[in-house]
Amino acid sequence: MNRPRVLVMSRAILRILRAPPGEFDYICLDDHADRDAFLARDGAGIAVILCSGMERLDAARLALLPDLRLIAVVAAGMAGIDLDAARARGIAVCNAGDINAGDVAEYAVAMMLAHRRALAANDAYVRSGRWVEARLPPGHAVSAQRVGVVGLGHIGHNIAQRLAPFGCTICWWGPNPKPLSWRRMESLADLADWATTLMVAVAGNDDTRGLVSADILRRLGPDGLIVNVSRGFVIDEPAMIAALRGGTLGGAALDVFDGEPIDGSGWVDVPNVLMAPHVAGATVESLAAVMQGALDNIRRHFAGQALERRVV
Amino acid sequence: MNRPRVLVMSRAILRILRAPPGEFDYICLDDHADRDAFLARDGAGIAVILCSGMERLDAARLALLPDLRLIAVVAAGMAGIDLDAARARGIAVCNAGDINAGDVAEYAVAMMLAHRRALAANDAYVRSGRWVEARLPPGHAVSAQRVGVVGLGHIGHNIAQRLAPFGCTICWWGPNPKPLSWRRMESLADLADWATTLMVAVAGNDDTRGLVSADILRRLGPDGLIVNVSRGFVIDEPAMIAALRGGTLGGAALDVFDGEPIDGSGWVDVPNVLMAPHVAGATVESLAAVMQGALDNIRRHFAGQALERRVV
Repeated sequence: MNRPRVLVMSRAILRILRAPPGEFDYICLDDHADRDAFLARDGAGIAVILCSGMERLDAARLALLPDLRLIAVVAAGMAGIDLDAARARGIAVCNAGDINAGDVAEYAVAMMLAHRRALAANDAYVRSGRWVEARLPPGHAVSAQRVGVVGLGHIGHNIAQRLAPFGCTICWWGPNPKPLSWRRMESLADLADWATTLMVAVAGNDDTRGLVSADILRRLGPDGLIVNVSRGFVIDEPAMIAALRGGTLGGAALDVFDGEPIDGSGWVDVPNVLMAPHVAGATVESLAAVMQGALDNIRRHFAGQALERRVV
Repeated sequence: MNRPRVLVMSRAILRILRAPPGEFDYICLDDHADRDAFLARDGAGIAVILCSGMERLDAARLALLPDLRLIAVVAAGMAGIDLDAARARGIAVCNAGDINAGDVAEYAVAMMLAHRRALAANDAYVRSGRWVEARLPPGHAVSAQRVGVVGLGHIGHNIAQRLAPFGCTICWWGPNPKPLSWRRMESLADLADWATTLMVAVAGNDDTRGLVSADILRRLGPDGLIVNVSRGFVIDEPAMIAALRGGTLGGAALDVFDGEPIDGSGWVDVPNVLMAPHVAGATVESLAAVMQGALDNIRRHFAGQALERRVV
């Protein structure tokens, strides 16, 4: 008996997929040197894709998969997927929704606290032996921060909830008002003028590309910190690097970059930057949960049941 | 007219003291090469000491200050002060109480998050260029942690409040039950058996010296993390170093050490340690607040008013 074929877009996903054997026939696209040639030859009959949302799934590639009915994404972001093309074709797209929003938020808060309280510099200070000679001048308390959350979706909301007991003042901006106790600013520019720290947690899409512009960074200012757990392209990265180099922006804590993975060479001399290789949402616990969520949707698809966390 | 003399125990305190001129005559003990000789000669007439709580103020030194009436401490800890001797002499001792407990707690939480989410290793990974070759294996979420707070005073309580929205399970141990929603374990050993992370926030005194013994560290175990914002001597430091070296303790995040300041040489090859030069409670905001609090108590003393945060 033929098991349904599921196209897995990368070896990285296949590695963390803990699926029971015998249920589906998993085909890994990374196993094929010329991926589009493989899809052109064997794409027919594939009804389901399991992907990270970052691999290329544009209209041309989707056209190689005439029987595709479901794209199950194991993350919140879907920047690699042409959602309009999927919609036009009647292909359902489900993502991880807010399954890993808590982990992303805790990483964003961790980076903010670590940057503001200078954990790396303090550790280096002790190791260098300088403590014997002099005390470090004090830094500023997190409780004294004015935190602007950019985008109050699942992740932004989780960030605000976790920061609230630290006593910092929290405001936010997003395109749509929400019935929440945190004050919404009229514009991102207003938020950046007011805030000492911006936590960028918007969805990464064409609407938010370049949202955090050179002007926004200038408003955040020389003592300002920007934290990004959204997508790299949401910030004007060259402008951010220039602002950090020039001292017109105080610091940056970045889990995401434009054009990942990066080799780090562009950041060697950029001061006051804390970086991470897009791991905010990737914990053992959340990976297991999002994989389970995607597998459950694939099962629902083949059982003819309604999908969860459906985006398209 | 003679202004009242106030003995300031160190230059570090004098530097951050922003007192209006003309009110008191501040004498800095660090300005005198032989401090006890200076006190023996000029100690008479000094009614007030302003100190960090760590400088030596034992019975012998207090005896050089026959007119001393108040020791105003700008921290919570008073390990350098012989409180019994002060009590016997009728010298009042006031400390910073919980003024900087929030800052200490936020630093403890910052260290825990940074250690658990591997911020330093992730930053180094991006900078090394290795991200281009491979993804990092995932770590564990803070939300999955079982956090044991050792000592639920001002600082421990502030730690628990800040960690609560992260979703981790929180229990605590201290000698006295308290009417709080977090569960109190019967003993520190029980807490260490259960916890994945211990946050040490007890008062540092003779009762808590060596409280976190080799046995407690063994119970915390090879995946366990210990965070210390109390005093260095509360943990058996040689046992902790041996446990980290041997892999029987997972990690440590330490703001305090036995015999501060340390030159770092004892920690060069000790793995999985994040260190700080006793700065958890030292922010611009809290230093200003504790200094103000101490100055206000000095004014109250000379005005014959009741003191605040009086310990002895």
